[in-house]
Amino acid sequence: MNKYLVIGGVRSGKSRHAETLANQFAQEQKANVIYVATAEAFDDEMTKRIAHHKDARPDHWQTRESGPKLTNTLAKIDNKAVILIDCLTVWLNNCLYYEEIDWQSEKTLFLEWLQHTQHTVIMVTNEVGFSITPDNPLARQFADEQGWLNQAVAAISNNVMFTIAGIPYELKKD
Amino acid sequence: MNKYLVIGGVRSGKSRHAETLANQFAQEQKANVIYVATAEAFDDEMTKRIAHHKDARPDHWQTRESGPKLTNTLAKIDNKAVILIDCLTVWLNNCLYYEEIDWQSEKTLFLEWLQHTQHTVIMVTNEVGFSITPDNPLARQFADEQGWLNQAVAAISNNVMFTIAGIPYELKKD
Amino acid sequence: MNKYLVIGGVRSGKSRHAETLANQFAQEQKANVIYVATAEAFDDEMTKRIAHHKDARPDHWQTRESGPKLTNTLAKIDNKAVILIDCLTVWLNNCLYYEEIDWQSEKTLFLEWLQHTQHTVIMVTNEVGFSITPDNPLARQFADEQGWLNQAVAAISNNVMFTIAGIPYELKKD
Repeated sequence: MNKYLVIGGVRSGKSRHAETLANQFAQEQKANVIYVATAEAFDDEMTKRIAHHKDARPDHWQTRESGPKLTNTLAKIDNKAVILIDCLTVWLNNCLYYEEIDWQSEKTLFLEWLQHTQHTVIMVTNEVGFSITPDNPLARQFADEQGWLNQAVAAISNNVMFTIAGIPYELKKD
Repeated sequence: MNKYLVIGGVRSGKSRHAETLANQFAQEQKANVIYVATAEAFDDEMTKRIAHHKDARPDHWQTRESGPKLTNTLAKIDNKAVILIDCLTVWLNNCLYYEEIDWQSEKTLFLEWLQHTQHTVIMVTNEVGFSITPDNPLARQFADEQGWLNQAVAAISNNVMFTIAGIPYELKKD
Repeated sequence: MNKYLVIGGVRSGKSRHAETLANQFAQEQKANVIYVATAEAFDDEMTKRIAHHKDARPDHWQTRESGPKLTNTLAKIDNKAVILIDCLTVWLNNCLYYEEIDWQSEKTLFLEWLQHTQHTVIMVTNEVGFSITPDNPLARQFADEQGWLNQAVAAISNNVMFTIAGIPYELKKD
């Protein structure tokens, strides 16, 4: 059991639950937590959102900022670590946003890494598909890709949790 | 136990789970699967979405395309069958889209059919109400009608499942 | 065990489930139900939505209409009662809508009241964060505040239920 997926909505406590898991596993394994941050600060609002999350994390965690090429960032982690990726939704957004990135290739690389990694990996992602179909074709594409990514990652994960109102609920356990 | 409702978001694996159930019940009952397709191809995107789902279905299934008058289509099925209706959300959309259709009447007809049918019925539907209230009054009406329809169908169903990230979760079991 | 939170989407049966609980507790405790209505009828659609909910409630319940200063309304209830607050989402909306209201102060007052009250309290709220991030900054702010409020209220509540298609699902039980 080394792959954990935490799925939730906006401000549902998903990052906090993932951080709790990361601390617990790091203590059990006497390993470091490496926090892989996918968020880029495009504007003031995003800067504030990133700072809000950062303030909540322990100082001794290592942080790796990652652009769209997430698997490159992950492949450089060689010492045994508890890796917390927060979050797959922002990574997807980064990939779809940059025209030069081929999302399907990046996704395949990541899923292969995830399948074979020996690190303990905790991933945070959003569920975005429980609403009226958006008018905007890009939003529909995003919802499709997010849903497919969540399915693929959940299939590889040993443990999948759903957070609502700060309460984690177990959907899958190996 | 012959009525199953699978509720999920966009790309949550709800159709795939419904198809798995249909295959399983068809084998158990030595019956055919009749796939009732509610989607109409208004545009290229919809054509692709329909083709994507169709490719995933077994060749030996019978398909019935249905417009808004879903209960007419269902009433014509006389041999014992496993009926998979995919999906109620597109049916609702078709009914609200065509001005000449009276949604409340169509809904009543369908619920009466569902209450009394001896076929095994598997239905797929979307949950669309977990977002900020849409600005658009038609979108709010759609969310209301979808919610009411899901409640009515769930009340008649023996088994209700919720899919997230490809994982079916049982909400109700007789 | 005296604090219950019912979380759901649009037309998911959350009010009806909360009303069922209120009736049950009122009978057990030989107490009255005081229904605290947060909805204000800004327009015709809202008037209809309020009437729709009102028709479903027993005549002998007392109703208190509350504007943004919800805790003021609650503090005036002195006889032991089963209090049903429907709903926190409309209350949040009222608070963010009125410029002269300081939401953070109102929220703090409410959470303090909730922490210490001896009444049985049943609260209804929406989950609004399972969709594509809205373009509108106010909608994003709303989703943030709703998510934080739900987390804070759920942490104080003894029992948290999630409703989908009219089916209540227990997320937390003391």
